[in-house]
Amino acid sequence: MRLSQYFLPTLKETPAEAQIVSHRLMLRAGMIRQSSAGIYSWLPLGFRVLKRIEQIVREEEDAAGCQEVLMPTIQPAELWRASGRYDDYGAEMLRIKDRHDRDMLYGPTNEEQITEIFKAYIRSYKHLPKLLYHIQWKFRDEVRPRFGVMRGREFLMKDAYSFDLDYAGAERSYRKFFVAYLRTFARMGLKAIPMQADSGPIGGDMSHEFQILAETGESKVFCDKAFLNFDPLQSDIDYDGNLKPLVDRWTGLYAAADEKHDPAKCPVKGDQLLEARGIEVGHIFYFGTKYSAPLGANVDGPDGKSTTVHMGSYGIGVSRLTGAIIEASHDDAGIIWPESVAPFRVGLINLKTGDAKTDALCADVYAKLRQKKVEVLYDDRDERAGAKFADMDLIGLPWQVIVGPRGAAVEKVEVKNRRTGERAEMSVDQALTKVAG
Amino acid sequence: MRLSQYFLPTLKETPAEAQIVSHRLMLRAGMIRQSSAGIYSWLPLGFRVLKRIEQIVREEEDAAGCQEVLMPTIQPAELWRASGRYDDYGAEMLRIKDRHDRDMLYGPTNEEQITEIFKAYIRSYKHLPKLLYHIQWKFRDEVRPRFGVMRGREFLMKDAYSFDLDYAGAERSYRKFFVAYLRTFARMGLKAIPMQADSGPIGGDMSHEFQILAETGESKVFCDKAFLNFDPLQSDIDYDGNLKPLVDRWTGLYAAADEKHDPAKCPVKGDQLLEARGIEVGHIFYFGTKYSAPLGANVDGPDGKSTTVHMGSYGIGVSRLTGAIIEASHDDAGIIWPESVAPFRVGLINLKTGDAKTDALCADVYAKLRQKKVEVLYDDRDERAGAKFADMDLIGLPWQVIVGPRGAAVEKVEVKNRRTGERAEMSVDQALTKVAG
Repeated sequence: MRLSQYFLPTLKETPAEAQIVSHRLMLRAGMIRQSSAGIYSWLPLGFRVLKRIEQIVREEEDAAGCQEVLMPTIQPAELWRASGRYDDYGAEMLRIKDRHDRDMLYGPTNEEQITEIFKAYIRSYKHLPKLLYHIQWKFRDEVRPRFGVMRGREFLMKDAYSFDLDYAGAERSYRKFFVAYLRTFARMGLKAIPMQADSGPIGGDMSHEFQILAETGESKVFCDKAFLNFDPLQSDIDYDGNLKPLVDRWTGLYAAADEKHDPAKCPVKGDQLLEARGIEVGHIFYFGTKYSAPLGANVDGPDGKSTTVHMGSYGIGVSRLTGAIIEASHDDAGIIWPESVAPFRVGLINLKTGDAKTDALCADVYAKLRQKKVEVLYDDRDERAGAKFADMDLIGLPWQVIVGPRGAAVEKVEVKNRRTGERAEMSVDQALTKVAG
Repeated sequence: MRLSQYFLPTLKETPAEAQIVSHRLMLRAGMIRQSSAGIYSWLPLGFRVLKRIEQIVREEEDAAGCQEVLMPTIQPAELWRASGRYDDYGAEMLRIKDRHDRDMLYGPTNEEQITEIFKAYIRSYKHLPKLLYHIQWKFRDEVRPRFGVMRGREFLMKDAYSFDLDYAGAERSYRKFFVAYLRTFARMGLKAIPMQADSGPIGGDMSHEFQILAETGESKVFCDKAFLNFDPLQSDIDYDGNLKPLVDRWTGLYAAADEKHDPAKCPVKGDQLLEARGIEVGHIFYFGTKYSAPLGANVDGPDGKSTTVHMGSYGIGVSRLTGAIIEASHDDAGIIWPESVAPFRVGLINLKTGDAKTDALCADVYAKLRQKKVEVLYDDRDERAGAKFADMDLIGLPWQVIVGPRGAAVEKVEVKNRRTGERAEMSVDQALTKVAG
């Protein structure tokens, strides 16, 4: 993509309304534009990142045996009356009347709807377990939306739901998501720490939040440093196998959010305890028959008796992750995208647009990168070199290939790694090999 | 994917509420489930088709130089007050009050919103033309929603918008979409006929509807049979080149919807006139400064003077296309998916699940297809052969590979082409070659 044609409205000024770094950088990098409070349009650069995150989430859900559906944003109120949540939910639910004066709502989540779908078709334990997910826009009418896409009103979420015959089955499903979540976040270059969360009146220990570590994170977290050595991508996962040992390895380590951390009772001593900041990006939760009972989602068990299914729900904040990744990966100059979610892999900078030799060498590099299917944003604008450097650092593409008249004369380019800051001059062929990955 | 694990709730009965064939088949094939009037959940099979259609639309928009953004579903009423459409739009607009009693709405379209975004960032003719699109759910509160996804209330639409300095520029942008639309529908196996449509108070001839031919289509259309020989995919398009000759070739032929067709004035005579049925799946429309003027979207022209930009909008009904393709491609037994949008390419039918040799041969074929990255749905259920044949024909995958004990004994399988009905026995290797495409 040529930057001269790309719709990338970067800002030099730091927007006053943005309180946190990810919000500032997303506005400055031309990723989003506010439509109204807590509601954003995604401009081309932001949209590309959002899609990459969504795709990683999708691939890991699919790998875990979860099947993708898509439920609508507008739901009938009756469903929520059946579960008892219509009145409980409060002002955060966006309530709507349609032209026939029927009560509708913009779904803040989908437990009721997926349970209705399950119930309509599945009658036998033989069709269990069933894991279903969708990636859809949700609406929660926050009283004070803020922090950009980190706490918006209209937000993109992946929510999955599991249906099992009994607790043991639900436990197996829960572990699948536990592992899939570790892999999902690791693929985005994030260090995710699962922390036991409140399971409310359901009880038990099947409720975990996933916090990713970020220096500018919203909350303080404490955990065993051993987490830092765990790599969820080290080996392939057999989701049909026994995942208990793997999950136990993670849940066996200490991790707690600030409000739950009691230094006196903490089993991790001294230097082994990591005190860090985190951002919640996922939550998995077993809730038994909370929705299946009132909505009547029953199946015939092996004994022929009707049994209410056990459910769990599993959420990942997809649009929130865009901000969370920036919180975890940036410097004073701007965003530093992990390669897996970067909007483009390479930024090609022409230091002297209009200079015949420089233009020609840039065109050559641009064509070769495209031929290799490397996604490249080519800054061919007629701008000062300083402005081009600043914009490229701001938008945070993993690699920069810099071409100026001096190098062009000897057919050399400079390659910069955005994360390490390392720069080196090399031939075009060497540069292509280096950045192609 | 193994059908025993797949969430594919096919129905034997024809649902009474469905009046048209695509609605009946989508319900029977387990593609969708109604959530409330005109609002549907997409079950796994339907979701896969929707995504394929969306991806073809995306690729052709990108090829035409259009950049993808994503605007939110919930818009502030002020925007629509500024254009004067808030009051004009009537009861089809889903109006909402948020918790702070602000007037919001669920976007039925996005002219105002995209104009606001454009205006915020683009100030110079140097950044024109700008073509932007998004693929987002829309809501139109139809008084009597019907025909399944063909006329739903919540529906997925691709809407693109062009911004140009003047009429000549707008004309060039318009032609890009004209050509991109021909290619988009052709890639879905559809025969699309562009028909001049009303351009309202704007006047001129830059308004075309794209109707695809379907025996069970909603409206009667008349056109020159020469259209049938045109293939928009025959050659690559240079979207930066002069598209006028190509567009003129298409617009030079006679085509009219029933209400505009006057046999006395029709220039096409006798046998050369095709009388067929069609379904509208796209509309492209130049509307000048209708939105840019009231919303103040101006740029500085080459002469330094501020000029109001010329706009066009370009819509494709993405969810509607799912139904439209079925209307255009089905038989008494069910859906016949064009390969490009098929949810899976191959259906593998095990005629005797539990028979060791048949199971082994099926497992072999299944593994080999997956290895070749051919998407395959393997019917490994313990069901009668007749039920399996019926389901596979119903869901309409392009190829069926049928394995029974008699063939398994001699390592042979049967391959059936869903569209032609052709069946032939062959070796596994031959079958793999045939269906892999």
